[in-house]
This record gives sequence, C-alpha cells and structure tokens, in this order.
Amino acid sequence: MSIERIGTTARYSDIVIHNQTAYLVEVPVSENTPIAEQTREILASFDRQLARIGSHHGRILSATIYLIDMADYDAMNTVWDAWLAAGTAPSRACVKVAGLAHPGWRVEIALIAAV
Amino acid sequence: MSIERIGTTARYSDIVIHNQTAYLVEVPVSENTPIAEQTREILASFDRQLARIGSHHGRILSATIYLIDMADYDAMNTVWDAWLAAGTAPSRACVKVAGLAHPGWRVEIALIAAV
Amino acid sequence: MSIERIGTTARYSDIVIHNQTAYLVEVPVSENTPIAEQTREILASFDRQLARIGSHHGRILSATIYLIDMADYDAMNTVWDAWLAAGTAPSRACVKVAGLAHPGWRVEIALIAAV
Repeated sequence: MSIERIGTTARYSDIVIHNQTAYLVEVPVSENTPIAEQTREILASFDRQLARIGSHHGRILSATIYLIDMADYDAMNTVWDAWLAAGTAPSRACVKVAGLAHPGWRVEIALIAAV
Repeated sequence: MSIERIGTTARYSDIVIHNQTAYLVEVPVSENTPIAEQTREILASFDRQLARIGSHHGRILSATIYLIDMADYDAMNTVWDAWLAAGTAPSRACVKVAGLAHPGWRVEIALIAAV
Repeated sequence: MSIERIGTTARYSDIVIHNQTAYLVEVPVSENTPIAEQTREILASFDRQLARIGSHHGRILSATIYLIDMADYDAMNTVWDAWLAAGTAPSRACVKVAGLAHPGWRVEIALIAAV
C-alpha cells in the first residue's frame, strides 16, 4: 500500500498519508507570543494542510497537545473548542512537557486524521 | 470511509473509530489518590469504553503512558501487567511529563486499539 | 482483522501490526552514553524490528521523539537526518519530557510505520 508525503524535508514531512489515515504535526509560526495566538497559528496550519489532502478538521481522529505551562490550558482550550464543529471532536491527550524545540514555543500538536 | 465517535463533547471524544482502529485517552476518576488506584481507574475506563465498541483490552495496538513521577513507575506497572492477558501487550511508550491538566492526576494514558 | 505481535512480554510488545500498520517504541541499549550513541542504538533497533516484518525505515509514517534535554536536539537530529533516505521523512513531533523510565536514557522514540 502506497505512502503519500507532502512537504518533505530531510527531517520530517508536513503530512504523511497511508491507508486513508494522515499524520500531521504543527508548531507555532511565531515565538514568544501568547498561547491563544500560537494555538490559532497551529490550527490554521492544520486547516491548510488538511485542505491539501481533501480532508478537514471535522475528520480528526486523535490529537496530542503538548503545552509548556498548564496556566495556558484554558486559553488554548478556548481556541481549540471554537475551532471544532459540534460533534466532531477527536480523542485528545494534553500534557505539560518540560520543553519544546524552540524556547519561544508554548504549544505543539500532533494529529491523526481520516482522509 | 466513515468516522464513528462516542462520548463527544466540544473538546474531545471518549472514542473515535475509523478504518477498524479506535483512539482513546483516559485520565483518573479520582484526584490526589495513589498511582495504583488512578491506574486501575483508567484501565477500568478503557475496559468500559472498549466494550462499547465490541473490542477489549486484548486488542490494544499502542499505548502512551504519561506519568508525573517516575517513582510511580513500578506501582503503575504492577497494575498494568496484571491487566493484560498473556501474549496481548501493545507497543508502549512511557514518559514522565512535567504535568497533567489536573494537579491531582498522576497518570494519563492514550491508546490505539483494533476494533 | 488479525493482530500480529512480535517480542511480546507481560508489559509491551516490540512490534504490533494491524491493518498494514505497525507500532514500535525503542529505548537506548546503553545508559549514561552520549545522545548520538543512544540515538544510533534506537535507530538500529528500529532497523532490526522493521526488517522482521518486511518493512524498513523508508516506510515510517509518524515519529514521536522524547528527549530529556533540548541541548541534545542538534546531535540527535544529525543522526536522525542521516538515517532517513531523501524524500522519506515521517511526520514528527519532538518534545522534552521530564524523565524517562531509566535515568541513564536521554531519548525514547515511538514510531508508526507502514508494513
């Protein structure tokens, strides 16, 4: 069964698709900005990526949300909850990690979505 | 291919199923209780959820276990190992995170299971 | 649909396969060794495991990399980038966790791969 990749660098791909399932990870565009802004950036990136493969954010199966501060939890959730259409929320884990690859990032999100 | 969701809120679903694969995340029922108790609560929740979709804990493919203290590792494992029938253990990652959404939680577990 | 497991203990399996998708997690062989060495050990373990199921590291869909120190990021990436053939990089999350199961481990990696 074939694998389709989009936005592939030496290190990662923006999207990988196999067996009608897509794998995506996004990080913020900006650094040292508030959590609401970084979350909106990530979700907008997911919208763009999912549109490229004919999917959309109503078809997310699983989300893993990595925060660096649980004080960001409510503000992240406000953006997250508003993004999802009623009845389409994925399975979701949310944990506070000890850090992300760039010190100015407050959130990183990994998704598995149906194509 | 259709997506089935169970226990869907504005933020997350208890279970999402697609392509014969189910995605689930559970957190403890209680707070500020010992790790063995919180682990048992989570595994009991998985048993209930998996039963709703005609699956069971002998069909788990992948587990990601988030602990907040590695001193809990052995007691969590005692409960975990006893839960799994011989020959059915999933692929498993186990990491210590810097925190979970509720300060009284000591463990959160994400599963991918076959339906 | 059947589940195939390889290297199954009471706690985890080295590989679990379902629906043409494989789930694997590896940790270092050595402890208290440099990040480059531990990363090479993990990637070599993945090569061995993937070979057992007729897959290979050009068919990885998703990777989750857990580091204990972001100072290890560049050295880990050097090994990672060299491992992947051009055009085959998976979706990838990389976070700093607060600890791993053995204090001498600096990295743990979870993969989802196509069989």
